[in-house]
Amino acid sequence: MPNVAKPVAILASEAPVRTKPSNYPEPFASRMTGREKRPLGDLFGLMNFGVNLTRLAPNAVSALRHAHSKQDEFIYILQGNAVLRTDEGLTPLSPGMCAGFKAGTGNGHCLINESAEEVVYLEVGDRTPGDEGGYPDEDLKALMVDGKWQFVHKDGAPYA
Amino acid sequence: MPNVAKPVAILASEAPVRTKPSNYPEPFASRMTGREKRPLGDLFGLMNFGVNLTRLAPNAVSALRHAHSKQDEFIYILQGNAVLRTDEGLTPLSPGMCAGFKAGTGNGHCLINESAEEVVYLEVGDRTPGDEGGYPDEDLKALMVDGKWQFVHKDGAPYA
Repeated sequence: MPNVAKPVAILASEAPVRTKPSNYPEPFASRMTGREKRPLGDLFGLMNFGVNLTRLAPNAVSALRHAHSKQDEFIYILQGNAVLRTDEGLTPLSPGMCAGFKAGTGNGHCLINESAEEVVYLEVGDRTPGDEGGYPDEDLKALMVDGKWQFVHKDGAPYA
Repeated sequence: MPNVAKPVAILASEAPVRTKPSNYPEPFASRMTGREKRPLGDLFGLMNFGVNLTRLAPNAVSALRHAHSKQDEFIYILQGNAVLRTDEGLTPLSPGMCAGFKAGTGNGHCLINESAEEVVYLEVGDRTPGDEGGYPDEDLKALMVDGKWQFVHKDGAPYA
């Protein structure tokens, strides 16, 4: 953010919502309805990792179940009750709980809000270059090209 | 943590407290009394960044005021009221507030608990190699050597 004055501190819930609701191609992007991300780290000019304050409405999911090849991820539940889906099955998460997703394990993860209340959590991910996203349940693969995600079928064919 | 079973998720407040209260040499280490760090990311095998759940008793401080040369930092207040000290002066922080400290600015930061209640916050820092810690208010400099902090006087002389 060149030439933009950076705040010393902010109330995270007042940070602007990310303009683009999802980077996924269809039909996956539409599945992200009810998910709202507020990038926090970017507001302070952080480059090495991103932090989002993310809200999931009832029935919303955090992402397609996915695993990163090089970038670690971490989540911390601030409000509400979510279900974490991994190769280990379903793990209920409540406020004050956290989980980390080490790069390179291939163990995909996503959060699901099966409750009737909003879920709010912090998510942290680093920006190690050359990352790839694997989606065990979908015909989808994500490649980081020039700092932006490109999505292809598992056979490498691009999404239209 | 080789050969240690990793949890899927944990209650952050039940994570083990870091054994070594402070890495600083004296007389600085003693100033960290009342600060308690629970490393969270390490429990999940994360390598690219660290996440701590940190508690400050009344009168405790987060660290000596410092700035990193290469590693970004981020904090999010979960409980209690702290004061953030930077080159901009004193900024009051309450639950739900966050701040980021971009590497390389030289703008030192620390949190101070001037309240009568405990302060609890999350702190995130990446592990970019070759980092140095600068301490604008002290005769101290921190060098990362083989993944461990080494502390020297500003003229490079080691602390005894």
